[in-house]
Amino acid sequence: MNNLKPANLALCIEKPTLIVNKERARNNIKKMADKARKSGVRFRPHFKTHQSAEIGGWFKEFGVDSISVSSVDMAAYFAEHGWKDISITFSVNFLQIRTINNLAHDVSLNLLVESPEAVKFLHKNVESNVRIWIKIDVGYHRTGINCENFEKILDVAQHIEKAPNLILSGILTHAGHSYNQRSKHGINKIYRETVGKLNEIRERLRSHNFQDIEISIGDTPCCSVVDEFTGVDEIRPGNFVFYDIMQLEIGSCTEQDIALAAACPVVAKHEERNEVVIYGGAVHLSKDFIVDKKGRKLFGRAAFLEKNGWGSFIRNTYVKSLSQEHGIIKTDSNTFNRIQVGDILIVLPVHSCLAANLLRNFITLEGEKIKAAQCGIVK
Amino acid sequence: MNNLKPANLALCIEKPTLIVNKERARNNIKKMADKARKSGVRFRPHFKTHQSAEIGGWFKEFGVDSISVSSVDMAAYFAEHGWKDISITFSVNFLQIRTINNLAHDVSLNLLVESPEAVKFLHKNVESNVRIWIKIDVGYHRTGINCENFEKILDVAQHIEKAPNLILSGILTHAGHSYNQRSKHGINKIYRETVGKLNEIRERLRSHNFQDIEISIGDTPCCSVVDEFTGVDEIRPGNFVFYDIMQLEIGSCTEQDIALAAACPVVAKHEERNEVVIYGGAVHLSKDFIVDKKGRKLFGRAAFLEKNGWGSFIRNTYVKSLSQEHGIIKTDSNTFNRIQVGDILIVLPVHSCLAANLLRNFITLEGEKIKAAQCGIVK
Repeated sequence: MNNLKPANLALCIEKPTLIVNKERARNNIKKMADKARKSGVRFRPHFKTHQSAEIGGWFKEFGVDSISVSSVDMAAYFAEHGWKDISITFSVNFLQIRTINNLAHDVSLNLLVESPEAVKFLHKNVESNVRIWIKIDVGYHRTGINCENFEKILDVAQHIEKAPNLILSGILTHAGHSYNQRSKHGINKIYRETVGKLNEIRERLRSHNFQDIEISIGDTPCCSVVDEFTGVDEIRPGNFVFYDIMQLEIGSCTEQDIALAAACPVVAKHEERNEVVIYGGAVHLSKDFIVDKKGRKLFGRAAFLEKNGWGSFIRNTYVKSLSQEHGIIKTDSNTFNRIQVGDILIVLPVHSCLAANLLRNFITLEGEKIKAAQCGIVK
Repeated sequence: MNNLKPANLALCIEKPTLIVNKERARNNIKKMADKARKSGVRFRPHFKTHQSAEIGGWFKEFGVDSISVSSVDMAAYFAEHGWKDISITFSVNFLQIRTINNLAHDVSLNLLVESPEAVKFLHKNVESNVRIWIKIDVGYHRTGINCENFEKILDVAQHIEKAPNLILSGILTHAGHSYNQRSKHGINKIYRETVGKLNEIRERLRSHNFQDIEISIGDTPCCSVVDEFTGVDEIRPGNFVFYDIMQLEIGSCTEQDIALAAACPVVAKHEERNEVVIYGGAVHLSKDFIVDKKGRKLFGRAAFLEKNGWGSFIRNTYVKSLSQEHGIIKTDSNTFNRIQVGDILIVLPVHSCLAANLLRNFITLEGEKIKAAQCGIVK
């Protein structure tokens, strides 16, 4: 894969541009695919992170043939690009039933429900058979049926059973509260609790004659940190393909795993406060931030562009604030003097999914241009 | 202008969609244009808020022929759509000099500088005459030359004077610290301070034989709140065309001035915590938030879709959190019971510029579809 020579990226970049380190991204995919295979679970990666048919192709090389997406439009995009087994892991949007029916006609479609009303709606409106997952809330409290509310879970399962066009695949969760953890111990604990709760539900469903209930989990921290996927049938991580500053902070990855960066032109310098202004703001990087150990909001880390990619994080240097197009990099006087207006500075985003969604397209270290979809945009 | 009948928007909307109340937007434009005319100042609205040639056309009806944009690409887009006098109110990005030269050939181009280095670069590289503004920092401390540093301002002015291809237009600021104010009194005070500082600089430049120095200011809070634009030559507000929850919080507008809303499908309900889950997340609304008087983070307000637009803010109801595609609306039990899965709920965004940048296109209350540019995306 590395016959390609590193491109002189400094010559290709004029404005905020996402750079992907393909070797790192492929390594991230390979590690996750290997662990899934060793554990005997289905690897159904979440493609909302990159939204790119071309990057999707990298997963195929590692045997991936089933995927997750977060919207009906993203499902339609990947179906157009040849994917045949797609889960829309977002509670079904009734208003897009026409597109859902078109999709269900062409591909093996998996949908999420979390209420009897949603099941009744699909029963009445879905024209081809679709596979159904019941969304369970194991503690994140964003959405899903509370895992303690077995009566409701059972009620939904029984409604699915009554609908001949709906096939109950299993129970699914996103343990997003793993993002609050800052240690491998804490993440492993969330994994064990999640799997414990889902297996208890599966047992109780079995006692009501629901056989073949699969368990699907999906957050990048748990999927990255656990050594083996015990007690589940399917994993759906997404962010791990690129990772980012948030995942590094959580402990899901090392700095050397981060495969996505934004190259940003330097447009001004302020010596009196050791700040560098870049062309690279909220419309390029998103406003997600972490709070570091010193209590500072941090919207990204900085690195220098190097011949083979980007260097290590620059010490004492971080993205302090973002407005629509401006980014403010706080640094020390040493680094300040190394940076000139007209240079390109690398920003490692806090949240790679949101940065990829904003900038859409990518360039590899070898200078290859990669397109992504425009799923969020109403045309 | 209101011969168009209200469309049945509920029938057109399947996924997160920006609705613009054209009547309100045109009123917002008219009010600002009238105030500028009465004050005898140039109205150079910032088009980064809508990034749409069609909405740009609404401004033409009120005599606007000069505009501001925040990137070279946005300038190219509006130049293609017939605008002939464009200010790129972002410190000049050296790396886009080719596009800048193409633009300067076709339109009257205004560029921003804040260092002698930038002036030297432009002197050497710009092929047609361009107008230059010196960016001054009057207290926001994002970027610009500190208003106390007259030596540097003078140095930059003298460098411009030496460059025959560069015409010094004036001094320009964005008093973004007005966004920290929460009273008309506080905003008026920032306006007076800003104008005072800029006039002092103008006087001192005059004493060095720089005549015809114009003063340009630009933030929506100041431009909305002051009764008359005394002491300036040009205003560049942008957000005021739509306003938003942030501007309402600051005191720049009333609820009835807000002209942009996102229509979002309801996908789940959680009775135990009076929360409604919408399809409408960070990739549609952005992660900007305000902190309300109770100390809660608030990512938007909610309203019901009505026949002629949207209703008043729903009491006790707000957007509590956003992840990539999910929005969580916190409400009370009364409202909770009025909302059903499959309904459309209106979200008033905290920051309309960022929501417009994400969703790009618009639909009017009359059902007219309006396109916007794709400026941020590297193709």
